[in-house]
Amino acid sequence: MNSVFLCVVDPGVGGNRLPVVLEADRRWFVGPENGLLNTVAVHSDACQWSIIKWRPQSLSASFHGRDLFAPIAARIADGDSGAAICPFSGPDLAGWLNDLDEIVYIDHYGNAITGRRYSKGLQDKLIIIEGMTVMQGRTFASVAKGHAFWYENSCGLVEIAVNQGRADRILELAVGSEFCLVDPL
Amino acid sequence: MNSVFLCVVDPGVGGNRLPVVLEADRRWFVGPENGLLNTVAVHSDACQWSIIKWRPQSLSASFHGRDLFAPIAARIADGDSGAAICPFSGPDLAGWLNDLDEIVYIDHYGNAITGRRYSKGLQDKLIIIEGMTVMQGRTFASVAKGHAFWYENSCGLVEIAVNQGRADRILELAVGSEFCLVDPL
Amino acid sequence: MNSVFLCVVDPGVGGNRLPVVLEADRRWFVGPENGLLNTVAVHSDACQWSIIKWRPQSLSASFHGRDLFAPIAARIADGDSGAAICPFSGPDLAGWLNDLDEIVYIDHYGNAITGRRYSKGLQDKLIIIEGMTVMQGRTFASVAKGHAFWYENSCGLVEIAVNQGRADRILELAVGSEFCLVDPL
Repeated sequence: MNSVFLCVVDPGVGGNRLPVVLEADRRWFVGPENGLLNTVAVHSDACQWSIIKWRPQSLSASFHGRDLFAPIAARIADGDSGAAICPFSGPDLAGWLNDLDEIVYIDHYGNAITGRRYSKGLQDKLIIIEGMTVMQGRTFASVAKGHAFWYENSCGLVEIAVNQGRADRILELAVGSEFCLVDPL
Repeated sequence: MNSVFLCVVDPGVGGNRLPVVLEADRRWFVGPENGLLNTVAVHSDACQWSIIKWRPQSLSASFHGRDLFAPIAARIADGDSGAAICPFSGPDLAGWLNDLDEIVYIDHYGNAITGRRYSKGLQDKLIIIEGMTVMQGRTFASVAKGHAFWYENSCGLVEIAVNQGRADRILELAVGSEFCLVDPL
Repeated sequence: MNSVFLCVVDPGVGGNRLPVVLEADRRWFVGPENGLLNTVAVHSDACQWSIIKWRPQSLSASFHGRDLFAPIAARIADGDSGAAICPFSGPDLAGWLNDLDEIVYIDHYGNAITGRRYSKGLQDKLIIIEGMTVMQGRTFASVAKGHAFWYENSCGLVEIAVNQGRADRILELAVGSEFCLVDPL
């Protein structure tokens, strides 16, 4: 609670996306209004969007994280953002996807993180991806070396991994690879 | 102001380059006298070089950043470096280059950073590099996906980039690639 | 002294290895009992192993560094770990190797770090590795550009390097490459 998150994934920096602040369940998120904060808003009980009105004396075209968002995050942490931001209605979130059954990230070790949240209803289901079937495991040590499995990772997401191997290479996975979850026969 | 910078790019560590402190416009820079600090000195209004006289009880041959420079930086931050350093005239900076029209760094995303500072006189000029012509843009979003442009980056340097692509691969750039800036026809 | 080290190299996370604390010469090491802390114990004058009894309310299967070890390390730093840990005899360390005459790590620059501690008895010895002979040097600058040498690195280990080059590529070294130290003829 009462934390301020500085969130900058901003390929449109310097373009016409809005700089915003999202207050969600007493946490603050500062960043560009390009979809980055939408999932936070959808999952919050109560939230309020604001536009950042303040501009620094010198604003680079390509590094708003440093020049614009970080100073605003610092002001919020100081309890001094009142004049710098202005409430607005926020983006239209109808139809915003809750889960995405795709690989969204390959980490340093070749583990494939998906956009699907784990829930108990997924227990023992099989993942079908790139024509292969991947069973659930609980930990890396629960399968033999070189074998693939999926599990609830430490962020609560479905993740595909290989014990002592790279899932991305062994299963030929990449960001964007789609999968489905099916019941075992 | 009043910051201390610990600067260690030191391929000659353990050799006979001098360990120095540069005070430039009320900022302190601690590191090897191998050219690393020269540009800071050239661009300062007022500067003073000092030699580091102090030696630790145990000085490794290959990690002066840890054993020598970091303790001196800490002493300066504590206002307690008087006996550890000794003023000297500094290196001869006549002929030290102000700008370098080459790629000096390829970042994680494939953007090619040059050694040329941006100034207003460069506006709308074209970069000729590896037989190709690159026009100026203001932001990544200002050109189509896959297109190259050059711009003033957030450090004030000329940088060559591709919107949603890798400039190093698309333009076949590497550290050391030379370029020139020309007027449009 | 009195430092707490949070040590997590834990491929068996979620399996049946023990979570432990090693107090060695008034330093604390928190992590899995999988061999990671054995060398610390062997080299200490006095040490005490403890098992971590405490469990968090929510323990993920794959991130005990966050969920289990970090809170225990914090409690130890607070002087408040009494009820959370329980002394035990520790692993059997008979036959635990003191030194390993192999490459154990290739760093970012291609330097090859070995598992052999440097001692004065090694002075001027030659390393024979992959059919090649490598002489001792004191620093990178002590040999010509592109030449290989071995030296005592800043951690006190024998390391093989190439001045302004990558030892791993030039000597074709990899983690696991074995070597021997011989007297010069």
